Amino acid sequence: MTKRVYNFSAGPAVLPVEVLEEARENLLSLGDTGVGIMEHSHRGKAFVAVYEEAVSLCRELAAIPDNYHVLFLQGGASSQFFMLPMNFLPKESTADYLVTGSWAKKAVAEAQRFGNVHVAGSSQDRNFCYIPSDCSYSDDAVYTHYTSNNTIFGTQFATVPDVACETLVCDMSSDIFSRPIDVSKYGVIYAGAQKNLGPSGVTLVIIRDDLVQQGPTDIPTMLQYRTHADNDSMFNTPPTFGIYIMGLIFKWIKARGGLAAVGEQNRDKAGKLYEYLDHSRLFNGTADLESRSQMNVTFVTGDADLDAQFISQSEAAGFSGLKGHRSVGGMRASLYNAFPTDGVDALIEFMKRFEAEQG
Amino acid sequence: MTKRVYNFSAGPAVLPVEVLEEARENLLSLGDTGVGIMEHSHRGKAFVAVYEEAVSLCRELAAIPDNYHVLFLQGGASSQFFMLPMNFLPKESTADYLVTGSWAKKAVAEAQRFGNVHVAGSSQDRNFCYIPSDCSYSDDAVYTHYTSNNTIFGTQFATVPDVACETLVCDMSSDIFSRPIDVSKYGVIYAGAQKNLGPSGVTLVIIRDDLVQQGPTDIPTMLQYRTHADNDSMFNTPPTFGIYIMGLIFKWIKARGGLAAVGEQNRDKAGKLYEYLDHSRLFNGTADLESRSQMNVTFVTGDADLDAQFISQSEAAGFSGLKGHRSVGGMRASLYNAFPTDGVDALIEFMKRFEAEQG
Repeated sequence: MTKRVYNFSAGPAVLPVEVLEEARENLLSLGDTGVGIMEHSHRGKAFVAVYEEAVSLCRELAAIPDNYHVLFLQGGASSQFFMLPMNFLPKESTADYLVTGSWAKKAVAEAQRFGNVHVAGSSQDRNFCYIPSDCSYSDDAVYTHYTSNNTIFGTQFATVPDVACETLVCDMSSDIFSRPIDVSKYGVIYAGAQKNLGPSGVTLVIIRDDLVQQGPTDIPTMLQYRTHADNDSMFNTPPTFGIYIMGLIFKWIKARGGLAAVGEQNRDKAGKLYEYLDHSRLFNGTADLESRSQMNVTFVTGDADLDAQFISQSEAAGFSGLKGHRSVGGMRASLYNAFPTDGVDALIEFMKRFEAEQG
Repeated sequence: MTKRVYNFSAGPAVLPVEVLEEARENLLSLGDTGVGIMEHSHRGKAFVAVYEEAVSLCRELAAIPDNYHVLFLQGGASSQFFMLPMNFLPKESTADYLVTGSWAKKAVAEAQRFGNVHVAGSSQDRNFCYIPSDCSYSDDAVYTHYTSNNTIFGTQFATVPDVACETLVCDMSSDIFSRPIDVSKYGVIYAGAQKNLGPSGVTLVIIRDDLVQQGPTDIPTMLQYRTHADNDSMFNTPPTFGIYIMGLIFKWIKARGGLAAVGEQNRDKAGKLYEYLDHSRLFNGTADLESRSQMNVTFVTGDADLDAQFISQSEAAGFSGLKGHRSVGGMRASLYNAFPTDGVDALIEFMKRFEAEQG
């Protein structure tokens, strides 16, 4: 068996070994069914049980109120970028968007195809290295949209933004279930699974029932939230394997103590690395202190050649995926739920050695 | 290890054991990368190689001409039902649809939201038990759409319908790569993977370049085929695991001799079962002889109680998924590429015994 390396990929990302081992056991036969997990009909008893357990654990972990639906969709967060305004932003109406990174910008671009977008806050002036605090919300926004964590720029909302609008919509793709969530504050929460929840190809959508009801009926059936809410995400064949893995992840989070406990573990993991960065004379974090992400720690040496040298040596030493996104440069350590603490310790030791070698 | 049962599920369906075993080996580490197949970044070298091999094998197996794109999308065939007319059926224009089952009807319903639909042929008058031959095509159809195999009703087009329109569009979800395809006859071929190609959650789309170019640019970015064609299906994170499995299936099909060889094996498998049905005094096939599907063999005893008894006994005997769809009743044996010949032999033996017991 090949030794697993420390995988800092921003997504698809590291999954818990326990989850992968359980999936491996069920690939040729789910339990004693004699049929592999990918081969079960989505309408059959065995998969329906998998689906129901995933929904139930999701509800339990985030204490999701009864007036919210839990949906498993496809197409990633990028499909929610247009599905949300297609459903909830009629022509002539306005939605507020907080622009804190590339994904928020893409969400804005899709919304502008449908109605008016008011940028209520932005951090583009300093290449998205902070979370804006002085935001100017519209009086009549039909919803306010924000991205809770910015994978590329290493920033994260520390708390839920305080908006007047009743329908807060959040793209939580890169920090969902990494800390407690107060679902009742939101109209819609959505997240591609491939960072904290599972493999790519399944999108978790948590949506308030009144929104589901109010959506239009003259758009394609697959693009109406009611279609999926009314059919338990099985209007057509859902991504069954992705839902299965997501359920295993939920079980794994529960076994680790739930969202509060996992949140503390994540704060500790990122905290160690930030503490080292703050004491290092070689490496510097790129995000403003109070805007730092617990999920994606971005840092540079200030010298692009030295960054490249560090990345190359880190790969040789068994650290995978530390290269930063081209729009920030430098390095990025993604420390999602499944990333192990000893990997953070090992990285810090490696960085210390590298720093020492620079004299 | 639990013994695998004969899985006649209509989809998600049986996958080749060799494919499942290879996936199992790579779940915790893809080759010697130390990172599991689901955990690799879609932009990384390892996954890009997986993607490129899948595309290349797909092109090789179906001899896909250079002016066609091979895309891996999400949302199933149900999403193609609306994406096609949204792209290619402007208001006031007309598309021809052949209505041979439930899925074709759903495709029609979505197309009607965009432009005019002319039903050029239908077999609804006899509950879709045949493929219509006398079709009346429009002079000015922008495309003609049909469903090559009807999972629920057990019917299949034996040959490509001879239409005047230059843009033939086919939903091949339930028989793609089960026999040779002449791609050059089509404008678009699409198929949910979960029958012959892999797990649910990935949709194969083979589309002619002129169509990609002619699509509108004022619809959501994710719903433009050019977005996916221009970005090698990686505009956003694709369903990486599904693409990986699809690549393994392509390799498996190639090792079995390619589409012509697999087509013969499928004809033999279904042929055995049909031959028995034609000689049985208890069981009867539900589809007209010349319209019979090589993929889904539908049959009844003519007595609903006896059907229920047969299904119940078949399950106890280790045959899974033989219950027919509620709109046809009776039984359905889905015999996709990965379904083994010995499973067909075992089913026939079991049916013979059941028939004998009825005296």
